[in-house]
Amino acid sequence: MTMLAAPAFGTIAGHVRQERLAQRLADMGRIGATVKGGVNRPALSREDGLARALLASWAAARGFSVETDGIGNLYVRRAGSDPALAPVMTGSHLDSQPTGGRYDGVYGVLAGFEVLEALEDAGLPTRHPVEVVAWTNEEGSRFQPYCMGSALFAGKMDLEMVLGCTDPQGVTVRDALAQTLALAPAMPVRPFGGPAAAYVEAHIEQGPRLEAEDRTIGVVSGIQGSRWFQVEVTGQEAHAGTTPHGARKDAFQAALRMVSALNDLMADPDDIVRCTFGRFEVLPGSPNTVPGKVIFTIDFRHPDAAMVKARGDAITPLIQALAAPCTVAVKETSTTSPVDFDPAVIDAVRAAAVGLGYSHMDMPSGANHDAKFMAPRCPTGMIFIPCRDGISHNEVEYASPGHCHAGAAVLAETLYRLAR
Amino acid sequence: MTMLAAPAFGTIAGHVRQERLAQRLADMGRIGATVKGGVNRPALSREDGLARALLASWAAARGFSVETDGIGNLYVRRAGSDPALAPVMTGSHLDSQPTGGRYDGVYGVLAGFEVLEALEDAGLPTRHPVEVVAWTNEEGSRFQPYCMGSALFAGKMDLEMVLGCTDPQGVTVRDALAQTLALAPAMPVRPFGGPAAAYVEAHIEQGPRLEAEDRTIGVVSGIQGSRWFQVEVTGQEAHAGTTPHGARKDAFQAALRMVSALNDLMADPDDIVRCTFGRFEVLPGSPNTVPGKVIFTIDFRHPDAAMVKARGDAITPLIQALAAPCTVAVKETSTTSPVDFDPAVIDAVRAAAVGLGYSHMDMPSGANHDAKFMAPRCPTGMIFIPCRDGISHNEVEYASPGHCHAGAAVLAETLYRLAR
Repeated sequence: MTMLAAPAFGTIAGHVRQERLAQRLADMGRIGATVKGGVNRPALSREDGLARALLASWAAARGFSVETDGIGNLYVRRAGSDPALAPVMTGSHLDSQPTGGRYDGVYGVLAGFEVLEALEDAGLPTRHPVEVVAWTNEEGSRFQPYCMGSALFAGKMDLEMVLGCTDPQGVTVRDALAQTLALAPAMPVRPFGGPAAAYVEAHIEQGPRLEAEDRTIGVVSGIQGSRWFQVEVTGQEAHAGTTPHGARKDAFQAALRMVSALNDLMADPDDIVRCTFGRFEVLPGSPNTVPGKVIFTIDFRHPDAAMVKARGDAITPLIQALAAPCTVAVKETSTTSPVDFDPAVIDAVRAAAVGLGYSHMDMPSGANHDAKFMAPRCPTGMIFIPCRDGISHNEVEYASPGHCHAGAAVLAETLYRLAR
Repeated sequence: MTMLAAPAFGTIAGHVRQERLAQRLADMGRIGATVKGGVNRPALSREDGLARALLASWAAARGFSVETDGIGNLYVRRAGSDPALAPVMTGSHLDSQPTGGRYDGVYGVLAGFEVLEALEDAGLPTRHPVEVVAWTNEEGSRFQPYCMGSALFAGKMDLEMVLGCTDPQGVTVRDALAQTLALAPAMPVRPFGGPAAAYVEAHIEQGPRLEAEDRTIGVVSGIQGSRWFQVEVTGQEAHAGTTPHGARKDAFQAALRMVSALNDLMADPDDIVRCTFGRFEVLPGSPNTVPGKVIFTIDFRHPDAAMVKARGDAITPLIQALAAPCTVAVKETSTTSPVDFDPAVIDAVRAAAVGLGYSHMDMPSGANHDAKFMAPRCPTGMIFIPCRDGISHNEVEYASPGHCHAGAAVLAETLYRLAR
C-alpha cells in the first residue's frame, strides 16, 4: 500500500531545470562579483541587500509570499493545502566570505527556490507549506557570531546582544540591517521560532571526499563536533652556538614533542578525525637563537560525541606531561558538540538519491552550517554536492551545473515527500 | 734546565689586580649604559669612539704606544727588548649588541690591558712586544660583515668593499669611522697584516658549560664550524574541518617530519652537536586552515670538520626524501669551517690554569670570535671564563670579578711565557 501511495521518483525532480538554476546562480554571482571569478558579499552589506531584493523579485514573479524577521532572515513560502500544518523548510545563506565563491550558501537558497518553482511548474500541491529561508550572516566574517540568523530563529542567541555587535569599522548589526532591508521591498515581519515540520539544506561539500570517491550526492549524517585549543610553551632564549642541547629550554622542541604525541593520539585508520595545527608561532624567530616561546593552536573535530570528549579530554594532560624543561599553558578556546541529523530525513535524502539513480555516500559535514541550529528544533538533514578540488572559501570555488541540478533534484524529491 | 729556566707560575699573575680590572670594566660599562644594566655601544658609534678615547688615555698614562689602521683597529703596545721580534697579541672588541652586556668583547680588551699593566708593575721586560688590540666591529649588528677588523688584518676582506658598507640608516663605514676616530687622539696609522708571534683572546664563554661543570677556566680548543640552511616547504591550504588527513598537503606536518628526522640525524650522546631551528614560520597561520607553507632555518655547528661535512651533507637529501606530498626547496645560506687552535698555545693556556690552581676544562667555542681570523695567521688560542646562567647578548650578562681576575691571570702567564 505504501509503495503504491508514494509517487514515482522523478515526479517532481523532472520539473527541476538545470539551465534555470544555473542562470539564477550566475545572476546572484554578479552581485559582489570579484575579478577573480568569486564574490564578496558580506552579511548586511549593500550587496547582501541587492541579493535579497533579487530573490524577493523572483518570488513575487511566481506568486510566493515573502516575510522577514527581527534579524532579516528572508522566508519565501509556497502555501500548503492544510493551514494547520507547519512548513517544511529548506535554505541556506546569501552572504559570502570576503574572497568567497559563487556557490557556498547561495546554492542552497537557489536550489530551494528551484524546488518551489518545480512544484509550481508541476502543479503539485503539498499539504505543508514549503519555505525557502535565506538566513542572515552565516559566515561570520563581517559580524560575529556566525549563523546569527538561524541561531536567533532557534532561540540560541539574544536579539539585543546580536543587534549591538559591530563590524571592524564599528557599524552595528542594527544599523547595517536597517540599511540592507531598505534595499528590498517592504515585507511582513514575523516572530522568531515559528513551528517547522522539517529542515533540509543543500550545500556544496567544501571538501574533497565526494570528488575523490566520484559520488554525486552526499547524504549528510550530521555535523561533527569540534574542540579548539591554544597552547603557549615557554622556554628560554639561548645562543644557538654555545648552548648544549642538554642545557636548553627549547620551546620549539617541546612543542614538537607535543605535536608528535598529538598526532599519535589522533591517529585514525578510518581518516575521520580532523586535527589541524593551523597557527604555530615560534619566537623570537632568529636563526641563531634557541626559541623561547611557541604559541600554537589545535583544531580537533569528529562527528562522534564520545570521541570528541575522550580524545579532546586527553589533549591537555598529554601536552602538560611533555612540557619539561619548558612550561606550558593550555586553553580550550571553543567547544561545539556534534549534531546528528534525523534518521528519517537522512533516509529520505538517501532514498531520493537512489530513486533518481545518483551515486551517493553517507558522510558527516566537516564545516558548520545553519542546519546545525535547526537540528534541535525539527527533523533536519543536508544534501551535499561535490565542489572542484574540494576548494571553498575561495574565489575559484566551483560546482558543475550537472551537480547543482542533481542536488536540487534530490532536494525536490525529499521536500515533496516530507510536505505532501 | 727547562724547568729551572721557566718562571714560577704567579710571577706575573701576582701583579694582576682584581679591583683595577673590575673598575676599568665598570668605567667602560658607563659608556652606552642602558637602564637595564647592559650597554648599547654599536660599532663606530659615538659610544665606540668614547670607549677608544678612554682606552687610549689609560695607555698614555702608562706610557704604552697606540696605533690604528685603515679600519680603526686600536693597537696598544708595550715594547719588547728585541726590536726584530713580532708582537705577541691579545685583545677582543669594544662594540656591543644593541641590548648587549658589560663583558662580551670589552672583557678581552681590558684583561689584555691588565696584563700590560701587570708586566709594567712587575718591571718584567719581554723580548717580544705585547700588544692589546681592540678590533673594530666584531658584532656585526650595526654593520655587516661581522669581525671586519680582524678579517681585514688577516687579509680576508677588501677594504674598499668594507668602507662602502652601510648601516640601516644608510651611513657608510667610511663616514662612521672618520667620526669615531675624531673622538680619540690622533695616532699613527699602520698597514694591515703586520707579523704576529701569537694571538690569545680572553672572553666570557657566552654559554653555560663552565658554570654547569663548576670550572673557572675554559681552555678553548678551537671554534666550531657551522652550516646554515633555509628550508621552504610548499603544500596546499585546505579547510581544517572538511579535508581528510589523507587528502591534505599539510606543509606543517611535512616540516614536522623533517625536523624529527633531523633531530635523529643530529643525535649526539656527547652533546657536542648544536642543531637549532630558530625560525619556523607557518603560513597562512589561521587556526582552521591547513598550512600551505612553512619556512624554517637550520643552524648546525660542530667543532670537527669531518662531522660538519658528513652530517651537513646529509641534511638536504634527508629533507627532500620526506617532503611528499608537499614539495621542498633547501638552500644552504652560510658555511664556515671549524678552526683548530694551535696545540702549543692550548697547552700554554692549560699549563697556566693548572699552575695557578684554577679548575679548568678543554672546550670548543660555540660562538665566533676575532680569534677565528687570527688562527690562520699565527699560533692562536682563547681563554674562556664563566658567565652567569650562560647568558650573553643580553643586558643581564654578568661575569664575577673573581672569574674576570682568574681569566686575566691565566692570560698574563700565557702571554708572558709566549713573549719573554
